[in-house]
Amino acid sequence: MDSLRKLFEPKSIALVGVSRHPEKMSHWLIRNVVRAGFDGSVYPIARGEEEILGYRAYAGLEQLPGPVDLVLVSVASKEVKRVIQEASGIKASVAVILSSGFGEVADERGKALQEEILGIARRSGMRVVGPNCLGVYNGHKNLNGTFLAEPPAHKGKISLISQSGAFMGVLVNEMNSREVGLGKFVSIGNQTDLRHQEIIEYFGNDEDTSVIGLFIEEVKDGRGFLSVVERVSKVKPIVIFKAGRTTAGRRATLTHTGSMAGDFAVAQAAFKQAGALTADTTEDFFDSLFALAYNHDRLPKDDRVGIVTISGGPSVVATDFCGEVGLRVPELRPETQEKIRGYVPFFSAVSNPVDMTVGIPLSNLGPCVDALMSAPDISGAIALNWGWDVTEFAEAFVQARNRYGKPIVAFASENPKVQKILHKNGILNFPAPERAVKAYRGLVEYERVKGKRVSRRAFNSKPSRRIGEIESGKHSILNEYISKEILSEYGVPTCKEWLVQRVADLAEKAEEIGYPVVLKVVHPGLLHKSESGGVVLNVGSEADLVKAAKGLEEKFSQGVLFLVQEYVKPGIEVIIGLRRDENYGPIIAFGLGGIFTELLRDISLRVCPLSWEDAHEMIQEIKGGALLKGYRGTPPADHDALAEVLLRVSELAVLNDRISEIDINPFILRGPDVKAVDALIALSSCEQA
Amino acid sequence: MDSLRKLFEPKSIALVGVSRHPEKMSHWLIRNVVRAGFDGSVYPIARGEEEILGYRAYAGLEQLPGPVDLVLVSVASKEVKRVIQEASGIKASVAVILSSGFGEVADERGKALQEEILGIARRSGMRVVGPNCLGVYNGHKNLNGTFLAEPPAHKGKISLISQSGAFMGVLVNEMNSREVGLGKFVSIGNQTDLRHQEIIEYFGNDEDTSVIGLFIEEVKDGRGFLSVVERVSKVKPIVIFKAGRTTAGRRATLTHTGSMAGDFAVAQAAFKQAGALTADTTEDFFDSLFALAYNHDRLPKDDRVGIVTISGGPSVVATDFCGEVGLRVPELRPETQEKIRGYVPFFSAVSNPVDMTVGIPLSNLGPCVDALMSAPDISGAIALNWGWDVTEFAEAFVQARNRYGKPIVAFASENPKVQKILHKNGILNFPAPERAVKAYRGLVEYERVKGKRVSRRAFNSKPSRRIGEIESGKHSILNEYISKEILSEYGVPTCKEWLVQRVADLAEKAEEIGYPVVLKVVHPGLLHKSESGGVVLNVGSEADLVKAAKGLEEKFSQGVLFLVQEYVKPGIEVIIGLRRDENYGPIIAFGLGGIFTELLRDISLRVCPLSWEDAHEMIQEIKGGALLKGYRGTPPADHDALAEVLLRVSELAVLNDRISEIDINPFILRGPDVKAVDALIALSSCEQA
Repeated sequence: MDSLRKLFEPKSIALVGVSRHPEKMSHWLIRNVVRAGFDGSVYPIARGEEEILGYRAYAGLEQLPGPVDLVLVSVASKEVKRVIQEASGIKASVAVILSSGFGEVADERGKALQEEILGIARRSGMRVVGPNCLGVYNGHKNLNGTFLAEPPAHKGKISLISQSGAFMGVLVNEMNSREVGLGKFVSIGNQTDLRHQEIIEYFGNDEDTSVIGLFIEEVKDGRGFLSVVERVSKVKPIVIFKAGRTTAGRRATLTHTGSMAGDFAVAQAAFKQAGALTADTTEDFFDSLFALAYNHDRLPKDDRVGIVTISGGPSVVATDFCGEVGLRVPELRPETQEKIRGYVPFFSAVSNPVDMTVGIPLSNLGPCVDALMSAPDISGAIALNWGWDVTEFAEAFVQARNRYGKPIVAFASENPKVQKILHKNGILNFPAPERAVKAYRGLVEYERVKGKRVSRRAFNSKPSRRIGEIESGKHSILNEYISKEILSEYGVPTCKEWLVQRVADLAEKAEEIGYPVVLKVVHPGLLHKSESGGVVLNVGSEADLVKAAKGLEEKFSQGVLFLVQEYVKPGIEVIIGLRRDENYGPIIAFGLGGIFTELLRDISLRVCPLSWEDAHEMIQEIKGGALLKGYRGTPPADHDALAEVLLRVSELAVLNDRISEIDINPFILRGPDVKAVDALIALSSCEQA
Repeated sequence: MDSLRKLFEPKSIALVGVSRHPEKMSHWLIRNVVRAGFDGSVYPIARGEEEILGYRAYAGLEQLPGPVDLVLVSVASKEVKRVIQEASGIKASVAVILSSGFGEVADERGKALQEEILGIARRSGMRVVGPNCLGVYNGHKNLNGTFLAEPPAHKGKISLISQSGAFMGVLVNEMNSREVGLGKFVSIGNQTDLRHQEIIEYFGNDEDTSVIGLFIEEVKDGRGFLSVVERVSKVKPIVIFKAGRTTAGRRATLTHTGSMAGDFAVAQAAFKQAGALTADTTEDFFDSLFALAYNHDRLPKDDRVGIVTISGGPSVVATDFCGEVGLRVPELRPETQEKIRGYVPFFSAVSNPVDMTVGIPLSNLGPCVDALMSAPDISGAIALNWGWDVTEFAEAFVQARNRYGKPIVAFASENPKVQKILHKNGILNFPAPERAVKAYRGLVEYERVKGKRVSRRAFNSKPSRRIGEIESGKHSILNEYISKEILSEYGVPTCKEWLVQRVADLAEKAEEIGYPVVLKVVHPGLLHKSESGGVVLNVGSEADLVKAAKGLEEKFSQGVLFLVQEYVKPGIEVIIGLRRDENYGPIIAFGLGGIFTELLRDISLRVCPLSWEDAHEMIQEIKGGALLKGYRGTPPADHDALAEVLLRVSELAVLNDRISEIDINPFILRGPDVKAVDALIALSSCEQA
């Protein structure tokens, strides 16, 4: 953390490779440092110069008269190694390498150089930000160590991390034009050393930060990242905008910051699970950050919102959009409507949206808005006004907001006085009705994140005995019988079954299970039993059983093993899967069987270990979830039983590193009776795990 | 059309109810007319005034010295009737009623008054715009007959229709701030008389209009509307933003303009089918209009787009978003990459996105952009630039655009010079990368609309003989057998079946069909045969058949009818439905069977008659469409055969007004073998039809 304090609150800065020529970007760097009014020591390093912008220039870092906290490096990529050596030599705390031409380049030399530089820094304990970045900014300490063309105009408590410099620039520009204040930011470029999670942790403890925003191309050490997000998101909202959603997008992150964007669906699910809010577009990201900065201490207690306006069309649009993003615009109770009706012209709308119309007497604006905001019908409001620039409108909302503590966001267009009063009083204005609605939804979401409970449950709590018996050192796909034995160890219910070697022994086991039974062949390397004719369903008698077994022997080979299984009555078929993501560890997947997962990709994902609440969310969030409520006579699925199975599979994966994959398909739900009918577990070799 | 000419190009205007007091909205009206520099006669009507803003005032319309084309009415609602009587009396061509307090009010008196006013106008042949609207504007004739606070700042060729005045105001404000030019607009409020379609028709023939935008709450005479949209959209893009998507949104349109928003899904499908582009949000609507205004004569020939930038992060975002909206960002061919590589620094990205980086020499910007834009790899480009304000950047794109005629849209942030050059040369700038991408997608869509062929096919071409035999005058649900007879008349393939009265006759028919057969009971009022046990599947022999029939007789009653049917082998089950929408006429629905339609609401809708292309689009657009390509051994569906069936059902509905509903469920597809297995047709009484 000390290095991060030196990064954001240095006492002395050396700027390596700055120019005295105002048209060069390396001049902007020192110009920005100087203009921001940095009050520590500033050392320009530039050969052949006496001074730059009033500061004495030095030929090299070794010539400096005092210690250096922060070194900003803006030289050609081939010079960077030498500069880092010098910086390490003088025991600088942090070097920010703004230069490009490293891991983002297609050939391997850039990556190698980057690694070499990192090695040098590590040996001296110096931290490195970048390379290929925009620099570091801290408005509260007058630090602007960036290439920004225009400095951030307003101080605030939004702090930001972005690999991309340009994206950060776009955001700063937007904050300037919408008069939103910035706290700190750092662009970490190729993030060769300093990573998102360290900075999030720092921001979590930073008094000048109340909201954290991240534009991410690649997360390094996914699990470490998630654990920090999980902790910090409980106290400060974290909004994440992740790049690399599509194949073309991943090609773009690779050539941009050398980032391996990874599986987007996994990352997005993991972020949400850890408590981050996720944005889908640049504007969503900005709006969500801004709304949270203004309202993080005044979140709506639920999703019921009032739409209140003097502009009918935009209010219709906002109302529609609430429906699309899952906010309720409840019809107001008769008593609330009656109260409002007392203040508005007869042609006004009072049911919600409340359209007061411009016909409302100015002196009624305050009481009318108060009547709505005080009502228990709604937990916050969206105020809309096109073109009626009367101060009474703005004041009505400011007063009601202060009185009832319910959040308000606004869409105010073409009314400078209204906008100014709202803004001054912390009611944020958005550029379109839908933008205000979506930003409000972010407030509701963060309230949920804060309130979300995490109940952990342990069942077995020790590594699998059965896996321990399997020869280590090689990768293997376990057969159905062994896979289910392992699942059973962790309490996952499986169908009754026996592994039988001799045809002659089948009947006894079938009798024990009860007819009809299912007969399956177990054969090394035979993964798709059904497709290759290795399964006989609905075997009703001993005679049929023997006949079926002989048929299978003929088809496959003498000496195959048989699996004789209870016939599980039809129910809702689901799939439970697991694979090990190299960044986020074991990822559990849940979906409905067949076309839902295979064609519609309707799958919910979570990082293990799951909480009880995560398991329930997984079940609820699939699109075909309605099917779990029962359909055409199938009894509804027992959500608790299913959630417990997900937790048990999660525990199995967490306690057994060798498991690389689990595929339970189908898992059949028939009311409270739930069973794994077919399953497969793959183990990696011990060396891999 | 003459009335519309008088509306948009009047020679004389009377303004009824205007005030000399600048703070009143009724003063804004005359102020706007005067400020816009209207060069015809202006007659303020205001009792007790001598003159207003230099124009002689009159006490009433009867006192006017000359004829009047356009009357703008801005008096209290209770005065409006008298004014309309006077306006009719002096043979004014059009009255625009800006006043509120009519059909949008909850009680019935407002609607009644509105109807009465319409009656008066109709009798004298005067057209009415409104009531409850913002007025009329024509930049090309210096007409601003509106309540707008700020006038439109730029003349252009986008013309607009909106019921809502405030929404129009928001749009004008946006056009002013983004420097986009406006042609004409009219706000039609409660649209008691003048409707969308008449104005669209007028704009279609208007030389000063190249793009048409509509913000719609309610369409009146849906079929008339669609036929105008179909014609005009072939020559000018029409972009529609429809309100009333959700229950709360429909409550809002009702209290806003008294509009019955109708079924949103039907309206949206109908608009698209007719060739309109549809927007989902305010900003989509604006962006799409603006992009089309700048590029309607330079549309991309396909969906392959180049992303070209000096700002990595935003280019990653834009690339991702292309994927989300269905634009391709193809990896460039090696020869194109090689060419580009010759102009850029070694750390640049050249595969697409092309990130030239700020390290590119200024003189290389032109050739580099040219190398990309000239390549056959892409059909247009999105230019992104944060903060590098060099004129060479802008000029490179302007020149390449002019040279190759491929459209370019931009996201340029924090670089005023670049923005100005691009804008001046017709390359539009958007406020976020995603906005530029989505606007570009609108260009691709309109190119498709223009190129879309409409192939009509007729099969039977005459009303159903079978329906003619059914007693008219009452609503009836036809049984399965008769329903399929009617479908067969129109060539819809159905399963082989016989209606049989006596158990003794069943065997002969079953023999003819071939075992196994299906036996169903036909019983008046029994709609859900399967659920009530009226269906016996898989009847394999004569003995079983007789037994099953006796069982059904016992269960239902002696004297029921039997339907003996061929057993149709499993295939892909789809549903074809039809219902008559009171605004748009017969609507055909297509979806996959079971949960897809019932739980996932995965249904495609079209207005009848369908074209061959519509039918194919319907099949392709359902989300579960992958299932039609064959799944787990089921052969793929024969798309042409299915499309033909949709056309035949459409023809049946169009030629037989009495049909209120058709439900074919399931329709089974097994390769080229397609068959209606169960079906039901409902007829309305002749009076209703």
